[in-house]
Amino acid sequence: MVDRRLAWAAAFVAALFVSEAAGADERVAPVRALPTPVDLSPQMRALVDRPVPLNYNEWPKTTEEWAARQSASRASGEKLATDMAARLHVKISTSTMGGVTVFDVLPETVAPENRNRLLIHVHAGCYVVGGGPGATVEAMLVASFGGFHVISVDYRMPPAAYFPAALDDVITVWQEALKTYKPSQMAVFGSSAGGALTLEMVLRAKQLGLPLPGAIAPGTPMADLTGVGDSFATNAMIDNVLVSRDGFCDPGAQFYANGHDLRDPLLSPVYGDFVGFPPAILTTGTRDLLLSNTVRVHRKLRRAGVEAQLQVFEALSHAQYIRDDTAPETRDVAKEIAAFFDRHLSN
Amino acid sequence: MVDRRLAWAAAFVAALFVSEAAGADERVAPVRALPTPVDLSPQMRALVDRPVPLNYNEWPKTTEEWAARQSASRASGEKLATDMAARLHVKISTSTMGGVTVFDVLPETVAPENRNRLLIHVHAGCYVVGGGPGATVEAMLVASFGGFHVISVDYRMPPAAYFPAALDDVITVWQEALKTYKPSQMAVFGSSAGGALTLEMVLRAKQLGLPLPGAIAPGTPMADLTGVGDSFATNAMIDNVLVSRDGFCDPGAQFYANGHDLRDPLLSPVYGDFVGFPPAILTTGTRDLLLSNTVRVHRKLRRAGVEAQLQVFEALSHAQYIRDDTAPETRDVAKEIAAFFDRHLSN
Repeated sequence: MVDRRLAWAAAFVAALFVSEAAGADERVAPVRALPTPVDLSPQMRALVDRPVPLNYNEWPKTTEEWAARQSASRASGEKLATDMAARLHVKISTSTMGGVTVFDVLPETVAPENRNRLLIHVHAGCYVVGGGPGATVEAMLVASFGGFHVISVDYRMPPAAYFPAALDDVITVWQEALKTYKPSQMAVFGSSAGGALTLEMVLRAKQLGLPLPGAIAPGTPMADLTGVGDSFATNAMIDNVLVSRDGFCDPGAQFYANGHDLRDPLLSPVYGDFVGFPPAILTTGTRDLLLSNTVRVHRKLRRAGVEAQLQVFEALSHAQYIRDDTAPETRDVAKEIAAFFDRHLSN
Repeated sequence: MVDRRLAWAAAFVAALFVSEAAGADERVAPVRALPTPVDLSPQMRALVDRPVPLNYNEWPKTTEEWAARQSASRASGEKLATDMAARLHVKISTSTMGGVTVFDVLPETVAPENRNRLLIHVHAGCYVVGGGPGATVEAMLVASFGGFHVISVDYRMPPAAYFPAALDDVITVWQEALKTYKPSQMAVFGSSAGGALTLEMVLRAKQLGLPLPGAIAPGTPMADLTGVGDSFATNAMIDNVLVSRDGFCDPGAQFYANGHDLRDPLLSPVYGDFVGFPPAILTTGTRDLLLSNTVRVHRKLRRAGVEAQLQVFEALSHAQYIRDDTAPETRDVAKEIAAFFDRHLSN
């Protein structure tokens, strides 16, 4: 056991070094211990206390390596989705809408007030992973805890198809759904890349002159691929999911962008025009690497006069709120989103 | 100039030391540079880039030292308030309500819809500083940008009077105001200790069977004096206002508590029963040492079925949103609070 005072002294000296290297005009945060947060459910505490994965910054460099990562993610997602569907009594079937693969997610009972409503879900995964049956995880939570019929879009990803293929697929599903439902009866939601695609879908629908959904729920959206967002620095190595910008998520998004300008609002929606957006509820956690980009989107929506609600969960890292359906925090998130949709969608 | 790679290598070694000292079951965040955040106004960038004050952890140890600190704070607050009142065209006069000193804060024009409304403001300062004319700073912002008549309570502080004197003074003013205004025409607000006192005032009014205000705005409340709150660890030395729990704020609150149990909801309101609370809007920043305790209160309010809105500002430290009335972020905060009150108060 190393002496605690000696360790902190070493940390202080290191901070001086980094401070010097960083330059006089740059601030530095010293090393600190992260005790287990107290005010969490045991399930979330277990997730929050996981160490940062040692290989977090080993990301695929070739198309073949990305494809292998995609297959591995697909397999683990399928296992999770199967277990969760059984626990939540949700039925999932596969079909296509306008040629796009979708999962139809039905709870045991659709609530009476939701009989004429449809939710469209867009999955997470940095634009390159998270496809296949595992895509339905967040869809199941809102379907089950909110009594909603949900369609989850299994959008195309690189290397099969690049920007704007994923967005095109979401728009195609939206146009197909408009043949059966009024736009005011429908909401769009998703987390991370799915949160970004939710915002991008509304921006694109505005461009195309399509009607907009009655509400949206962009969770911890990858809203800025240009590196702006203070929590990329403050929560680096504190978030144990994305870990840092050296992780695989930004390279994944760049793989999807395929050379396209990352500042395009259809890739970094925080730079889009939010005027006329539907009511939005946003979710993040205090340890989330995308905490800043979630609150930046929230503020921009409010400045554009949009009704926008924000919920931030104690100590949670990026999108950790969809990882364990047995945790009360997860149920809170799903119920808040469902209640928000209920308040804003027509019957 | 020290080599950057060498500096980070030293930081890494230090992290290993601390990791060892912390024990195998505790996570550690390494040293990191904090580049100047991009998405801020120049005014806020200047505040955010201020270095951590070197004497942040030198806090008074004796009653005399506390009294000296209080006088110094009073003098600097008076200067700030005088300048701000001139810029914002706000008129301030002193009077008493039920024996409690208050400041009457009047904007150039009270908005027509606010003619029968009154806001009660409770100032910040860790329960020991921030009194006198400087108490009116946040009151002026909401008075000026929202067109409201505001009463700011210059509550008693130690060493003149200890817990629950401050709370008693707020309750006295509330009872006096009830002689002229309906409770639904009034809101209570404040930041930091003032945010805690806002929550404590509602808890106490519930205990006493008094009517509750129509809305509240507890900004970054000191809602938990027991040390719980993950951002005490994650934002330590990143927040350049409170800096860390080694700063003077917790000892200040303990000086006020005067030996009373810190877990009492009238000192740590996050442990109170929020059922029946009026609609609330909460404000914090991503670098705030009290980020966690603000979002914990928000979640607890929501779980109690209370309409509660949260706004989190990019990169701001504790209560930095009331420091510069010329910054657009400050105006956003004041306008959001004013709009929230307008939506929830009767005329």
